[in-house]
Amino acid sequence: MPDHPLRIAVIGGLASGPAAAAEAVRHGADVDLYEAGAHVSVGACEIPYFVADQLEGKADLVVHSAEELERTRGFRVFTRHRVTAIDARSGRLTVTALAHNASREERYDRFILATGARANRLNVPGEDAAGVFSVRDYADAVEIKRWLRTEDVRHVVVVGGGYVGVEMAEAMRDRGLRATILDPSGRVLASSLHPDMGAPLAAAIKASGVAVRAELPTEILADHEGRVVAVRTDRGELIGSQAVIVAIGVTPRTDLAESAGVRVGASGALATDERMRTNVRTLWACGDVAEVHRAIDGRPVHWPLAPVARRTARVAARNASARRGDADRFEGVTPSVAVRAFGVEVAAAGLSEASARDAGFDALAVQIRHVTRTTVQPGSKPIDVRLVVDRDRGRILGGQIVSREGAALRADVLVPLIRYGATARELAEDLDLVYNPPLSPSVDPLVIAGSAALRALGRRG
Amino acid sequence: MPDHPLRIAVIGGLASGPAAAAEAVRHGADVDLYEAGAHVSVGACEIPYFVADQLEGKADLVVHSAEELERTRGFRVFTRHRVTAIDARSGRLTVTALAHNASREERYDRFILATGARANRLNVPGEDAAGVFSVRDYADAVEIKRWLRTEDVRHVVVVGGGYVGVEMAEAMRDRGLRATILDPSGRVLASSLHPDMGAPLAAAIKASGVAVRAELPTEILADHEGRVVAVRTDRGELIGSQAVIVAIGVTPRTDLAESAGVRVGASGALATDERMRTNVRTLWACGDVAEVHRAIDGRPVHWPLAPVARRTARVAARNASARRGDADRFEGVTPSVAVRAFGVEVAAAGLSEASARDAGFDALAVQIRHVTRTTVQPGSKPIDVRLVVDRDRGRILGGQIVSREGAALRADVLVPLIRYGATARELAEDLDLVYNPPLSPSVDPLVIAGSAALRALGRRG
Repeated sequence: MPDHPLRIAVIGGLASGPAAAAEAVRHGADVDLYEAGAHVSVGACEIPYFVADQLEGKADLVVHSAEELERTRGFRVFTRHRVTAIDARSGRLTVTALAHNASREERYDRFILATGARANRLNVPGEDAAGVFSVRDYADAVEIKRWLRTEDVRHVVVVGGGYVGVEMAEAMRDRGLRATILDPSGRVLASSLHPDMGAPLAAAIKASGVAVRAELPTEILADHEGRVVAVRTDRGELIGSQAVIVAIGVTPRTDLAESAGVRVGASGALATDERMRTNVRTLWACGDVAEVHRAIDGRPVHWPLAPVARRTARVAARNASARRGDADRFEGVTPSVAVRAFGVEVAAAGLSEASARDAGFDALAVQIRHVTRTTVQPGSKPIDVRLVVDRDRGRILGGQIVSREGAALRADVLVPLIRYGATARELAEDLDLVYNPPLSPSVDPLVIAGSAALRALGRRG
Repeated sequence: MPDHPLRIAVIGGLASGPAAAAEAVRHGADVDLYEAGAHVSVGACEIPYFVADQLEGKADLVVHSAEELERTRGFRVFTRHRVTAIDARSGRLTVTALAHNASREERYDRFILATGARANRLNVPGEDAAGVFSVRDYADAVEIKRWLRTEDVRHVVVVGGGYVGVEMAEAMRDRGLRATILDPSGRVLASSLHPDMGAPLAAAIKASGVAVRAELPTEILADHEGRVVAVRTDRGELIGSQAVIVAIGVTPRTDLAESAGVRVGASGALATDERMRTNVRTLWACGDVAEVHRAIDGRPVHWPLAPVARRTARVAARNASARRGDADRFEGVTPSVAVRAFGVEVAAAGLSEASARDAGFDALAVQIRHVTRTTVQPGSKPIDVRLVVDRDRGRILGGQIVSREGAALRADVLVPLIRYGATARELAEDLDLVYNPPLSPSVDPLVIAGSAALRALGRRG
């Protein structure tokens, strides 16, 4: 057992990497962080608002500079350093300083893989034209803004109707541009939101002038200088466009880890145990490169969102910096997500019907429409709640909420209900949610949904 | 065992009475409802907004007319009928029709007591002057509005700085009147909010021009026609005033039940078991007249708020209409409350430090200030969270939240955490609350408070 501090290398400097490094330092480790890009600690969640010029007070998205992190958090930061190999057995890491293309070896006791995920590509001809962008990191965000500022952009095609696609389409609209969303489903948030819940957001998007088309790009066309001019779709149509934003999900960057012998799980991310340790004894993983297990059923999933990255970074760092490696465990994820776009809040927590059935639950869903405040109060808005419950015990498995106000925080109410195994009956009959006329209706929409679920289950309610 | 439907008398027609009657009908009972006043199904929660002329679409506060209830819910409604005696042994009820002052007897198998609570009086000389009002029922609300419309009112003294007092002071301000709140504590919401949490609301009240004074009225002075002209306080001051609103809490109306042999509990309300049954076999109680037990420690409390009234009405009705009387049980209350006034949301759930210590917990409190959205987003507001935890296991016992947005719904997140026994650590480290820049900061204020509690408990965080 060495009595020097454990030397830990963290690979990856966005979001989870710096969080893990800081946590490891707090637990006594000696930490170096490597990041191939020029910036550290950049979150992707804020990019749409940065692109829309809506952020206040901060010139850019860099939450912490490398210098600030070194000074305040106590770990060394190497930006523009690409780690090309890890030899777990000997504890050797090979890293290239991109500035002068020089490679060197360093020795560490342990490694934390925080290499994140890369934006999925379209894989269509012309994809490398100027004016085609991903929405993944700070460089993407800066390039999109520069393009919109310097080019004569009037119409932007956003490929993908997920959260990022919707937010980017809104950002384009907010910049005064026309935007069209292409999604094979013909709707937005198709993977999070049941079709019956989609109408309010679809109507708001339509009213904003943004189009949603059930088409897929098959080719990007560029002018003689290589600038995008149009997108060809699988219906053979040409959509004139001076910028294309591709937001069709992400894929974990597992290459480095795989070459070090780390196993990839069913979700495509690095398989981990509850301590966020990989199958290689000295390697932990966190953030968007790591697989996590779902709390409700233990199934391994890839859930690349910031709150989970923060949690896995903490667990990986505590275990990597503890001599015995069993200092903390990840208690599972209750997948939850929220977006506000075009004036509509959409939030989901836990399982959808489809994912619940896929997980083996005998799932039942109910959907209700209620109001956000007593109807006689000014400002009351419609609110839709869809609740997914287990037919067997009436357990709440998930929910979706859509409204112009109060949807996201109501998803936050569902999260502990799902997490602690509450039943529809407990939600409908036993939960003391607050009532005050300007803040809520006399019976909360969640409680109304719980009662509807009870009735659908054939239990009294 | 009779094979006719069970005959049930519900005594009291506000909020919990009609709810209990409707539920009993659904379960096969034959139900009569008696109400001494002229109206049924009136909620008290909306009165301040009614008085402020802020309710839309409805001319008044009567949620359902007696005729509508009879037609749609299937029970008979007798308004202006005062029940003067119940003989539980013989199943006889004596009732006076106030319209013609005629008494009669009726026979029932069972009784549900929903007599509610009366507004506390000041018990000072001059209290019966014209222009001195309670805020309890529809008649109060109508009288206050008529007085404000017909009299030359410029300054209103509101006695009591609780939720109702604050809402009524705001209603007066919204009507363009000056208002002064008298509360012996010198602050508002003193019983729900720790002094360290009071500043934002106190500042907003001050900015609105409403005064808060640490004084108690000792006398109401009236002119020669009996109209209030001033309030004398315990400091010997005279406050000129053309209307006085007394909002110093309520007392359960237990007289009828007590004369029928029902025991009053430690809280002053009717003692009940988990089935909402009193000590008299054929008598159940619900709503503001009934005592309930607190879920966290089983202590009997009086918590006269609408959501609890709805719950106790349901339980009492199901058991009263079941032959065996054990059809449902009340699972305990997690006391929670919210108010929005002067642009500030104040919410509390579970136990305060004082009530936690009083209940025997070794309680610890932490308080944090955070923001409601990412700081770079426009519209982000400060938010204060005070979290009360048990030093022993770190269990979350209660919390208070104050902000210009998102306080009430965050109390609704605390309710299941308290209810299901979650710890500060689970809140700080394991809970997947959503993150989206326009909707929340990257780490929710509740999670920040959980982390602060962990640190204060001396656990890693």
